[in-house]
Amino acid sequence: MRRRSKYNVAVVGVGAVGVEMLRVLRQRDFPVGDLKVLARSARVIGVDGHSYHVEAITPEAFDGVDIALFAGTEGEKGAAVTYAAEAVKRGALVIDNGADFRMDPDVPLVVPEVNPKDAKKALKARGIIANPNCSTIQMVVALAPIHKLFKIKKVVVATYQAASGAGSKAAQELFDQTRSVLDGQAAVPQVLDQRIAFNLFPHIGGFGEAGYTSEEWKMVKETHKIFHDPRIKISATTARVPVKTGHSEAVYIECRRPVDIDAVRKAFAEAPGIVVVDDVAQSQYPLPVDAEGRDEVFIGRIRKDPMDEKALWLWVVADNLRKGAATNAVQIAELFVKR
Amino acid sequence: MRRRSKYNVAVVGVGAVGVEMLRVLRQRDFPVGDLKVLARSARVIGVDGHSYHVEAITPEAFDGVDIALFAGTEGEKGAAVTYAAEAVKRGALVIDNGADFRMDPDVPLVVPEVNPKDAKKALKARGIIANPNCSTIQMVVALAPIHKLFKIKKVVVATYQAASGAGSKAAQELFDQTRSVLDGQAAVPQVLDQRIAFNLFPHIGGFGEAGYTSEEWKMVKETHKIFHDPRIKISATTARVPVKTGHSEAVYIECRRPVDIDAVRKAFAEAPGIVVVDDVAQSQYPLPVDAEGRDEVFIGRIRKDPMDEKALWLWVVADNLRKGAATNAVQIAELFVKR
Repeated sequence: MRRRSKYNVAVVGVGAVGVEMLRVLRQRDFPVGDLKVLARSARVIGVDGHSYHVEAITPEAFDGVDIALFAGTEGEKGAAVTYAAEAVKRGALVIDNGADFRMDPDVPLVVPEVNPKDAKKALKARGIIANPNCSTIQMVVALAPIHKLFKIKKVVVATYQAASGAGSKAAQELFDQTRSVLDGQAAVPQVLDQRIAFNLFPHIGGFGEAGYTSEEWKMVKETHKIFHDPRIKISATTARVPVKTGHSEAVYIECRRPVDIDAVRKAFAEAPGIVVVDDVAQSQYPLPVDAEGRDEVFIGRIRKDPMDEKALWLWVVADNLRKGAATNAVQIAELFVKR
Repeated sequence: MRRRSKYNVAVVGVGAVGVEMLRVLRQRDFPVGDLKVLARSARVIGVDGHSYHVEAITPEAFDGVDIALFAGTEGEKGAAVTYAAEAVKRGALVIDNGADFRMDPDVPLVVPEVNPKDAKKALKARGIIANPNCSTIQMVVALAPIHKLFKIKKVVVATYQAASGAGSKAAQELFDQTRSVLDGQAAVPQVLDQRIAFNLFPHIGGFGEAGYTSEEWKMVKETHKIFHDPRIKISATTARVPVKTGHSEAVYIECRRPVDIDAVRKAFAEAPGIVVVDDVAQSQYPLPVDAEGRDEVFIGRIRKDPMDEKALWLWVVADNLRKGAATNAVQIAELFVKR
């Protein structure tokens, strides 16, 4: 991609992630030249007091675009399936938050803190870089320093995923349904798979091979691809919880070598994008409500398994719409933008 | 204990668990002769349309009592510390839901589906039987058939624990605080350690050795005691979630032998106290809202780790006030009551 002072950017999609992309571009002061906001239909939307003219998406809309950020959609093929190649043909670098291209061997899957060098490979391949799934991103940011120190053998993870991970309508359903239940009315799921008010369920995405959900497989396969190591045993149970935004993960890690917790803390302190919140004497550990609106991955409850010197636990929290989606995509774009 | 057609029962405590004990005694048609309800102060309470005269607790109140069920308290010494010996001295068998006696080597820790024979040892020892912690009970009911089949080597568990596990005031705080947040007011924690409305936190009980919470240690040590096997590696992260009642657990189990899932399903089908809810094609798996008011342990998402033939996952849900507390205590009493 040509070096320049400003880049013409297209954001595709104006759901929860698309809106967050607009917000993150502005907040991180991304050197945006022309900004196009593309969606199925034209309209005007407001984000934080700024109004954006949304254009109806067409192949020609990508003329002159340097970087196209596709927000992706929940549970169906994203716009990138139809338009990514069109955007690339017209000279854009595509960064896709959807799931469609993640496992394509010619599409790098990138978390800038973990495998930034992979991003450059896109320029010689399909011109597309995939953003991993939200639950994968925050986990691999936490795993990377540990893998470097002690070589990870196995990861067992249980997630506590916020409603907004299923889109803005799901987040609204959480609030509306909760109010209904408090008012003594019935809870009728319309967007999410089950009642979410004062309830939770181990079902994110569709059920597939081996009884795993697609979300659980994403955590396995995407982590393998990002670490370039399919031998790491990864196993997940993913659950939706009545939280608006902010995914939490209880991550258990078995290493090949004995774990030194002080070395882990030192590595986290030096790692980019990680904030350690871990002072249990003061009841300090990461919380989803504290992570909301933040770009970092928050890690706490850092502790060795008292029964296994090669194993440790982490409690990992991040804003699923930001680091889990929009922020990571913009950070990938920043890899190409030397300021 | 003498065989008789009716037993004089005392219920000590009228918090969330004490009330549930009164309900369970009635619902399970326990052969109650005289019923005493004891608490710090005398009053009249109503449960499901029945009214109960609560007496102020004294040592003499246990005169003539055959079975004393102590509800226990959250986060402080229970009444059993003061009164269990007084009750035993007067001829009562004490079943204590509190944490004070659980690790006493002279007090059996009993889950009737798992180690019923241990209960009888109490009669030759201190006369006290301890009820395990809620999160332990539902886990060991699920683990027992698997341990028998394949010998468990390691358990990694992450919990999703309901507010009522911290008492009825905590459950009320969940509702009140949630309404405040929906109305745009601040969320001010008063009972629980953190905001619970649309939030969750990995902190149940106090923090202790190795950075584990007391709740996490209970899952380790109580499971060892119940299975009479301290070599099983058990490691837990426990979290409070905005659910009123019903604890959920993502349980990962590594066995010494390869796992046969059909054999697991067959064992669960034959095991007492277990209901399998596991038809993912129909989006069927256990949910806390469905477990509320039920006495069984619900198990779903039964699946092998595709990367480890000796490991499997379970999703385990139970009503923390019933199977996790009141029901288990009454079931222990039932072991002594041949009808």
